[in-house]
Amino acid sequence: MSLDLVIRGGTIATASDVFRADVGIRDGRIVQIGEGLGQASQVIDATGRLVLPGGIDSHVHIAQPSGDGIRMADDFESGTRSALFGGNTTVLPFCLQGKGQSLRDALRGYHALATGNCYTDVSFHLIVSDPTPSVLGQELPALVMDGYTSFKVFMTYEGLRLNDAEILATMDTARRTGALVMVHCENEDAIRYLIGRHEAQGDVGPRAHATTRPVAAEREATHRAVSLAEIVDVPVVIVHVSNGAALGEIRAARGRGRKVVAETCPQYLMLTAADLDGMDWEGAKFVCSPPPRNAAEQEACWTGLEQGDFDLFSSDHCPFRYDDPAGKLNPKGRTSFAHVPNGIPGVETRLPILFSEGVSKGRIGLSRFVALTATNHARIYGLEKKGSIAVGMDADIAIWDAGAKRTIAHADLHDGADYSPYEGIEVTGWPETVIVGGRVMVRGGELVGAKGTGRYVPRALSSLARQAAV
Amino acid sequence: MSLDLVIRGGTIATASDVFRADVGIRDGRIVQIGEGLGQASQVIDATGRLVLPGGIDSHVHIAQPSGDGIRMADDFESGTRSALFGGNTTVLPFCLQGKGQSLRDALRGYHALATGNCYTDVSFHLIVSDPTPSVLGQELPALVMDGYTSFKVFMTYEGLRLNDAEILATMDTARRTGALVMVHCENEDAIRYLIGRHEAQGDVGPRAHATTRPVAAEREATHRAVSLAEIVDVPVVIVHVSNGAALGEIRAARGRGRKVVAETCPQYLMLTAADLDGMDWEGAKFVCSPPPRNAAEQEACWTGLEQGDFDLFSSDHCPFRYDDPAGKLNPKGRTSFAHVPNGIPGVETRLPILFSEGVSKGRIGLSRFVALTATNHARIYGLEKKGSIAVGMDADIAIWDAGAKRTIAHADLHDGADYSPYEGIEVTGWPETVIVGGRVMVRGGELVGAKGTGRYVPRALSSLARQAAV
Amino acid sequence: MSLDLVIRGGTIATASDVFRADVGIRDGRIVQIGEGLGQASQVIDATGRLVLPGGIDSHVHIAQPSGDGIRMADDFESGTRSALFGGNTTVLPFCLQGKGQSLRDALRGYHALATGNCYTDVSFHLIVSDPTPSVLGQELPALVMDGYTSFKVFMTYEGLRLNDAEILATMDTARRTGALVMVHCENEDAIRYLIGRHEAQGDVGPRAHATTRPVAAEREATHRAVSLAEIVDVPVVIVHVSNGAALGEIRAARGRGRKVVAETCPQYLMLTAADLDGMDWEGAKFVCSPPPRNAAEQEACWTGLEQGDFDLFSSDHCPFRYDDPAGKLNPKGRTSFAHVPNGIPGVETRLPILFSEGVSKGRIGLSRFVALTATNHARIYGLEKKGSIAVGMDADIAIWDAGAKRTIAHADLHDGADYSPYEGIEVTGWPETVIVGGRVMVRGGELVGAKGTGRYVPRALSSLARQAAV
Amino acid sequence: MSLDLVIRGGTIATASDVFRADVGIRDGRIVQIGEGLGQASQVIDATGRLVLPGGIDSHVHIAQPSGDGIRMADDFESGTRSALFGGNTTVLPFCLQGKGQSLRDALRGYHALATGNCYTDVSFHLIVSDPTPSVLGQELPALVMDGYTSFKVFMTYEGLRLNDAEILATMDTARRTGALVMVHCENEDAIRYLIGRHEAQGDVGPRAHATTRPVAAEREATHRAVSLAEIVDVPVVIVHVSNGAALGEIRAARGRGRKVVAETCPQYLMLTAADLDGMDWEGAKFVCSPPPRNAAEQEACWTGLEQGDFDLFSSDHCPFRYDDPAGKLNPKGRTSFAHVPNGIPGVETRLPILFSEGVSKGRIGLSRFVALTATNHARIYGLEKKGSIAVGMDADIAIWDAGAKRTIAHADLHDGADYSPYEGIEVTGWPETVIVGGRVMVRGGELVGAKGTGRYVPRALSSLARQAAV
Repeated sequence: MSLDLVIRGGTIATASDVFRADVGIRDGRIVQIGEGLGQASQVIDATGRLVLPGGIDSHVHIAQPSGDGIRMADDFESGTRSALFGGNTTVLPFCLQGKGQSLRDALRGYHALATGNCYTDVSFHLIVSDPTPSVLGQELPALVMDGYTSFKVFMTYEGLRLNDAEILATMDTARRTGALVMVHCENEDAIRYLIGRHEAQGDVGPRAHATTRPVAAEREATHRAVSLAEIVDVPVVIVHVSNGAALGEIRAARGRGRKVVAETCPQYLMLTAADLDGMDWEGAKFVCSPPPRNAAEQEACWTGLEQGDFDLFSSDHCPFRYDDPAGKLNPKGRTSFAHVPNGIPGVETRLPILFSEGVSKGRIGLSRFVALTATNHARIYGLEKKGSIAVGMDADIAIWDAGAKRTIAHADLHDGADYSPYEGIEVTGWPETVIVGGRVMVRGGELVGAKGTGRYVPRALSSLARQAAV
Repeated sequence: MSLDLVIRGGTIATASDVFRADVGIRDGRIVQIGEGLGQASQVIDATGRLVLPGGIDSHVHIAQPSGDGIRMADDFESGTRSALFGGNTTVLPFCLQGKGQSLRDALRGYHALATGNCYTDVSFHLIVSDPTPSVLGQELPALVMDGYTSFKVFMTYEGLRLNDAEILATMDTARRTGALVMVHCENEDAIRYLIGRHEAQGDVGPRAHATTRPVAAEREATHRAVSLAEIVDVPVVIVHVSNGAALGEIRAARGRGRKVVAETCPQYLMLTAADLDGMDWEGAKFVCSPPPRNAAEQEACWTGLEQGDFDLFSSDHCPFRYDDPAGKLNPKGRTSFAHVPNGIPGVETRLPILFSEGVSKGRIGLSRFVALTATNHARIYGLEKKGSIAVGMDADIAIWDAGAKRTIAHADLHDGADYSPYEGIEVTGWPETVIVGGRVMVRGGELVGAKGTGRYVPRALSSLARQAAV
Repeated sequence: MSLDLVIRGGTIATASDVFRADVGIRDGRIVQIGEGLGQASQVIDATGRLVLPGGIDSHVHIAQPSGDGIRMADDFESGTRSALFGGNTTVLPFCLQGKGQSLRDALRGYHALATGNCYTDVSFHLIVSDPTPSVLGQELPALVMDGYTSFKVFMTYEGLRLNDAEILATMDTARRTGALVMVHCENEDAIRYLIGRHEAQGDVGPRAHATTRPVAAEREATHRAVSLAEIVDVPVVIVHVSNGAALGEIRAARGRGRKVVAETCPQYLMLTAADLDGMDWEGAKFVCSPPPRNAAEQEACWTGLEQGDFDLFSSDHCPFRYDDPAGKLNPKGRTSFAHVPNGIPGVETRLPILFSEGVSKGRIGLSRFVALTATNHARIYGLEKKGSIAVGMDADIAIWDAGAKRTIAHADLHDGADYSPYEGIEVTGWPETVIVGGRVMVRGGELVGAKGTGRYVPRALSSLARQAAV
Repeated sequence: MSLDLVIRGGTIATASDVFRADVGIRDGRIVQIGEGLGQASQVIDATGRLVLPGGIDSHVHIAQPSGDGIRMADDFESGTRSALFGGNTTVLPFCLQGKGQSLRDALRGYHALATGNCYTDVSFHLIVSDPTPSVLGQELPALVMDGYTSFKVFMTYEGLRLNDAEILATMDTARRTGALVMVHCENEDAIRYLIGRHEAQGDVGPRAHATTRPVAAEREATHRAVSLAEIVDVPVVIVHVSNGAALGEIRAARGRGRKVVAETCPQYLMLTAADLDGMDWEGAKFVCSPPPRNAAEQEACWTGLEQGDFDLFSSDHCPFRYDDPAGKLNPKGRTSFAHVPNGIPGVETRLPILFSEGVSKGRIGLSRFVALTATNHARIYGLEKKGSIAVGMDADIAIWDAGAKRTIAHADLHDGADYSPYEGIEVTGWPETVIVGGRVMVRGGELVGAKGTGRYVPRALSSLARQAAV
């Protein structure tokens, strides 16, 4: 068989196996894996390198309006470019339904922004913020059929959070359609209550962001989310788990036989609430929700990664500029923590951080790394041709230099924000070549592929949800 | 010292001790306990009998409107008469705030109904159903000062349930005033969702009442209630716990250092959901919320009683007539379980059931019985002069024949309902003499005291809440 | 009724109630409690004072041989004198069976040492170190009948520890006789293993005592002890619980319906492993087993006290001199932590420490204090006439000045050791008058009673064990 | 590249991926996986079939003496033939050290029996029954270097069980060498105690085997095993977990960050203690340890499989004949359950049972099946070239007909026993072709390969143990 591209001599890792072989690619797909594969138009020598499935980041926010007229720091061009340089080949941003808006309509907007502008493949989760009967009864079922097979609901953020009845109704639509529901678990009312107490005391600096979103508020919402899913009898994804107590609720639900997917993110391994203490509002650079916790909770998250309690490791990339008045901190923002936009950049640093802190330091094996950063995302979210180095899969591949040493500096990154919360962290291991659909996009740290190479990918039902669907 | 009444030769039990002594009473108070007390105007020979503090039932509903024009089967006369015959000397019914109503106004109504009509002492919990800023900020603090030191909030029942923000605000008022918050823990939205599914399938018999209020809905709400109390930092009472999973949430909260009071009721020891299966709507006689569960959950509740996990054993007496169209089952009620009034009678049978099944059968000791049925109610709800046989306490006393054998029959009871859910159950142990404030009210099973002997008792702050109050 | 002694006007506390009354005593017993009691030969004015049941310390070691020729620092005279000054009226030391020795024989020795030398009442637990068939089959059943109704077994200490088969056999004897088994839970083999590793590394200072007896070794043994009791189906007492993990095993066993009594001690509230770091072997002053842990485990023990998880608060008084070559540290002891005698003094400071840190600081109420230090000890160990202020009880009473401020100094204590591990700790609350069997023994901090006033008290079966006995 | 064998058109499953491709084999190894692979000497058409890694059964007993002169029903010929027909390509039997015997010596015996007689590859775990200093210090380290990289220790069985000190010493050898320790967790003393009570009551039928080995005895030993491993700081394998409580101990240990591997077996999914009730000693056919439990524990084991709590699904094949006097039940055996040899056959039925009950019924996916039955065994036990369909792996492959329906009948099986505990169970899915090292051994249900094809395989260190090794 004639091949377009052969990657020779690398060490391939899947979620199951690590082995040395060539990879043969034709028409954008992996068609052969073996020793001594035949000739090809293009050859990459991967001797001494790791050949991994391209990262899938199933939790990123791009070009999403966030209220108060604040713009996100990344559009699809900068966001996917940053993802690409970080070793990713697919990202799953969110399509946010506005109040009163049809999801079809919202999707049209995101597709318009994405089309022709992406460096990686993209697919969309649907944020359901206005679950009217027609949205639940007609629009969502049709969208699931069209390949938008996951919904996200929020238990926090005014204007976005759903009440329990709305969550149940959305989960019921998932039950009937086989879609998968993701939940942001924090109790909005509890947070509002605590914000009120803090503001009444004049405690308005960024650190209060962490204090007013305590572990108890996340633990409560997590237990509620898994319980509502139990009532409806659907699987559920708990995104960005930040601490051991919330993870404990997930473990307990699994012990009751519930299908619960758990995700954590780099911020819960690398940052703590103390980072929000920065002088002169520097702490605002670390404002995200749930907030970073403390060393003990970081350790609990590591234990969860090591023990396989977490299925997904995502970035929750949600970039805002720190200095631009139109960006992260509008003037109002400077007046109280309650107005700092929630979210930090991280799509480019996710993989190097986990590789370095996890694989290089021996806390997790290479197969677990691949599962956490690519394979599980594909299986859970219905990307049937992605997430592994296997025959028939899309040729989405990242070639890593496991020994490369880098110091993270925002100056070297490719996103649209003006800082990185991980500035100065030293990592061992970096993706040097990134291939999307068989096309080399990054080589030796240089962009060699074209904007627009990344395509939109409709998705099948999650294997999880399929089992549960009526 | 001259005495009005001496009870001679009985075996006294307190929550701490069991011993033989005389009890000397003057001016309605216990003034001496000892061997060979002096003469008195009146003497009761209690040789071979148990002398226990009169039961305090801190969870009863009397003369409370319940929507749809359905009247409760007991007014204060019949309700307290029934309580009295069951060995109780104090009951704590609820004052229900209507929407838009001031609590003062609501209280006036209940006091008007109660004054002059009671056989036992009474005090009121306040059901907060409309927590407006003025209710929370002015009315409740004043009422707490006046001796209404406990609030109840509902997480279920349309028109009654509070959302989390309202619960937090009410708890915050408790935090500032030292009042104690009681919570009915079931997730209303989950129940509504399940009712919708059941009704859509035409499953409308009484048994569906249990199916649509599953353990998960109670466990969820229980965890939420203890978490909201944790956020506000107040103690909390979880009323009528029906199962091991909800109790497990309480145990976990205590392990985190939270002050949580737990209550269970006879229905969760003696009934199961299978009782709701009755032919021809007979099952409606057992409709209460949370619903009775199964044998394993009964056992879990017993374990909780034996191990000291439960602080309170109450009746949740909430009587409706079965046959009267103006009573329990209005015509609409006959059409779907969703319209059966929630609640069953039980104030008269609470003590004999626990005595018989617990003490006589050796599952709990006599001191635990006293604590669960009297002392703890007094301490937790601020009845400083009640709940024990000790010098200085009100002379509220029940003299029991531990060996008396009775078969429960509604014909022998004194409430206003037309059935007992415990009909036919055989018990060993019955209160034969009941004394309220030093006055003999029941003697040898006959009413000898006068209506109106029972007084209204304002309450101090709970010892629990006092510690937590700012 | 003529009275020998009246204590007037104090505030009495029982495990159930706190109230103001006089206490009337005749023939060594409490015969009346009331307002305005009549005249008596002797009157104590307790106005403004607390009248509490005398402390019962159910876990003390007196005059017990401990191997290597080391003598304990207290005989019955100094041990009970120290206990008395600390507000105790009864102590329960251990009778240690030597290998090959009959328990009768061992008891004769202890009785000989105790008779005529005690300031408080005493009763003996039996340490079973050689459970031969004749000991289990004949001797123990007869001794239970004679009032020695509790056995202690060790899972640690060479020469003392029993293997599982022996523990099961001893528990089976308890099952047949109604005796209660106490277990010292630490895994000896695990400790031996760790000592080997530490000694191999030359790590021989006192701190290694804590490192080689980690929480895991106690948690393991605790779970094993409750499991063996589950296999045999007997209640069990877990003595000196030092940490939250071991307590968690006890909570879990109770959740399975098992009757488990839990005890903790002052050292687990007040000391940490860091105290063993003392220079020049000063750390040896804090060597006890299990060792003190850390701040988080102290907090877990406090939570256990507040939540009612602990039934007993004892001293585990086990005094050795620090400086006397014949005492705590023999020359060999100076060479390795493994040779430091295990145990610290504390019978005199137990009550003031819990009163001050618990009651005065508002962590526990007065009734809980009484339960933890007197009532529960009496009920659990079958001292039917002790542990409360109630009619018919022995007149064992301590009158406390709740506001007295003292700094603990060994110079002021009355034991036979030469230091206190609590030196310099400030406490609020101290017992100023102590009455044993109606005789005033300490008054205003001075010894006014005679040696030999304390008697030996045979015990009934534990109420716990009685229920379980066949 | 010229190929010896190509498997065309099948659906390949790994622990990570399911995809359609050809598999190319040369020199006994998989060298290519791809679409349209070139010609080969031999071609198997696998269209419509599943191409799975050959099963690895890491827990089988073959030709192992079991005391009392009872012979096991399988030698290496019959045992590996039965395994082969059940879809396995590698089995890991045990080499049992006799008391006083050197392990080298014991190994020589097993190798002698195995060499030339195997149909599948084999490798040996070492049962350490006599951990003398020379065994631990010299022999085991040398054997680990030689590829015997796992030890098994028993907490039950007289003559085999180690005490805690011996287990700790053996684990310490594992710590120093990187070997992995497997533990049979049941508390021997507890079982002996219960056997004594049952025999004293004349309760000697097979059902008493289950009653005398209760869940508590397994839960206790499981917690002890993970705790001892925690003390030494090594990973540990808990074999044949039979119930939710023991699994709960494993989950708790993982929550503490411990590396614990968990295994379960078909008997804990398919049998219950009621099966031991058989008339006329038929129940003896189901005697294994731990014993089968009940429906709730079966469900707990299923939940553990679904949730990923179990890493390994093995047979614990341990065959004895039922009827042969020289076999399962010697005359003594007929007199009491305590003499029935412990163990049941199952190496041939393991895979079809899990495939049918798990995959065909939708409880687990195909990748989980592969992980549980092959991949995880290889990774955990250091079989670096086995357990997956990947380039470079040994060509150990089973081709399954997922739709084949069979009724299990011992007459169709190939082991040396005279019954199957699963007789009559209907399964969907059966391995029709089995390839060992590139050689077709079974084709269309017929044996076509030669005895002796199976080789002995030395093993690398477990990836788990490697991380932990000093």
